Amino acid sequence: MPDSKITIEEFNALSIEKLPFAELMGFQVEDIGYGAARMRLPVGARHLRPGGTVAGPALMGLADATMYAVVLGMIGPVELAVTTNLTCNFLRRPSVADVVAEGRILKLGKRLAVGEVSLYSEGDPEPVAHVTATYSIPPGADGREAVAP
Amino acid sequence: MPDSKITIEEFNALSIEKLPFAELMGFQVEDIGYGAARMRLPVGARHLRPGGTVAGPALMGLADATMYAVVLGMIGPVELAVTTNLTCNFLRRPSVADVVAEGRILKLGKRLAVGEVSLYSEGDPEPVAHVTATYSIPPGADGREAVAP
Amino acid sequence: MPDSKITIEEFNALSIEKLPFAELMGFQVEDIGYGAARMRLPVGARHLRPGGTVAGPALMGLADATMYAVVLGMIGPVELAVTTNLTCNFLRRPSVADVVAEGRILKLGKRLAVGEVSLYSEGDPEPVAHVTATYSIPPGADGREAVAP
Amino acid sequence: MPDSKITIEEFNALSIEKLPFAELMGFQVEDIGYGAARMRLPVGARHLRPGGTVAGPALMGLADATMYAVVLGMIGPVELAVTTNLTCNFLRRPSVADVVAEGRILKLGKRLAVGEVSLYSEGDPEPVAHVTATYSIPPGADGREAVAP
Repeated sequence: MPDSKITIEEFNALSIEKLPFAELMGFQVEDIGYGAARMRLPVGARHLRPGGTVAGPALMGLADATMYAVVLGMIGPVELAVTTNLTCNFLRRPSVADVVAEGRILKLGKRLAVGEVSLYSEGDPEPVAHVTATYSIPPGADGREAVAP
Repeated sequence: MPDSKITIEEFNALSIEKLPFAELMGFQVEDIGYGAARMRLPVGARHLRPGGTVAGPALMGLADATMYAVVLGMIGPVELAVTTNLTCNFLRRPSVADVVAEGRILKLGKRLAVGEVSLYSEGDPEPVAHVTATYSIPPGADGREAVAP
Repeated sequence: MPDSKITIEEFNALSIEKLPFAELMGFQVEDIGYGAARMRLPVGARHLRPGGTVAGPALMGLADATMYAVVLGMIGPVELAVTTNLTCNFLRRPSVADVVAEGRILKLGKRLAVGEVSLYSEGDPEPVAHVTATYSIPPGADGREAVAP
Repeated sequence: MPDSKITIEEFNALSIEKLPFAELMGFQVEDIGYGAARMRLPVGARHLRPGGTVAGPALMGLADATMYAVVLGMIGPVELAVTTNLTCNFLRRPSVADVVAEGRILKLGKRLAVGEVSLYSEGDPEPVAHVTATYSIPPGADGREAVAP
């Protein structure tokens, strides 16, 4: 991946404040590049449905956090970026394994960023869910104008 | 509301097994009718973002659970109904108050149920989020063929 | 409906330029208020599928045009408002009748407007489709800052 | 691409009946494989907005037709497959060029098929729109049970 404008350490520090749901669920960021990111939901009892599958809201939350990482990887640590729209298609029953989310940008504009996230049960190439999401970017924080020296 | 095919007590019993996320988050069902339901997310630190707003995944999870109540209110306690698609528009920053979700059916078919859920911060008439969701209904469990007794 | 910031005549004049698809399809605006609008797709061979139903893209186009009317009813004749997201749930097979679209605002912000549109075959109270759509509003054109005189 | 269960000629023959909107708009199928398809919207005055861009409903219609080709490529010429949900993110203003739609399957189930379509102005690698769509498949027509000898 090309260089991110935020490090994993910076993202984790932001997450504690800005993504309490990610903290609660135990999401882990694995890679952030410029326009792509990968996060993981480790297997854990709290997110499971009986029978072993991961709850839908946990999948949507993981996708949302992954898109946040994608966006911050392009514009830097802008705290005020917020999700405005999220569409999730649930495709397959997740297996009892970590869920890995691969996000990538579709469009970074001055005011909106749109991306997609594919979610997989680790070890299975077929996605368990697919998400598209839109983030609103506060004025002056888009990737083409410098957000900081 | 017209009569539901599931009582609140039956729904709560099912939730413990089928909606562990709802349990974790503390969602409360308030009313289930035939084609409509209302649920509540009580204010609580776990679902909050810093600054006091409710996390997006908690809102989506509340809407998903509400649609589950809407669907079961029409087809009875069918455990295998699953969400196939959920679209959320985040409209306003929730205030520090309970979130109330009002769900209603748009279409109950033999195989799919589609509905919408409007979410409000209690006491504010403007919605904080709007969700449309589709549930897949297992064969033989639609509202027009008897699923019971 | 409360007063619109655009008249039906002004909207029709704009449509010829800005909504060529609406012109092609023969959409007719029936009412525009502040935060709500109604449009109609008259029965016509071009929009029909064999068997008499209206084609999906014609329904989505009608919903999109209706949301445009809803937005312009709130911000006045701002030509540059553009759709950024549209989600359509197809609910029932339309009958051989006019399609009527009822749109209403969910949220008018400074930069985004979100609304929903329910589409009906005339004379049938059950919706044939449901749409949520987001419009991006150019800077300086939102409803709270004066866009005129 | 792997082998399709429908030829381009068979698809075109079906389109005349089943996709009158595609006929009206002049969509052309270019390739159908097992799980992927490519269609084209040739530049033409009818689909353009003033200023030269393609109308949103034409893009959504092209994506819908492309998904239909993707699905029929996997299950064969099943006329009764219908769209149940379509979500479109409009990303960039299309240029005055053909629009090319690349569709691929995300999940083929017994009852539902979900896919995504990326739309490009020819010659530009950045997508102008991104669509996810769900088709409902009539009983007995899924890809795993033989639909034909």
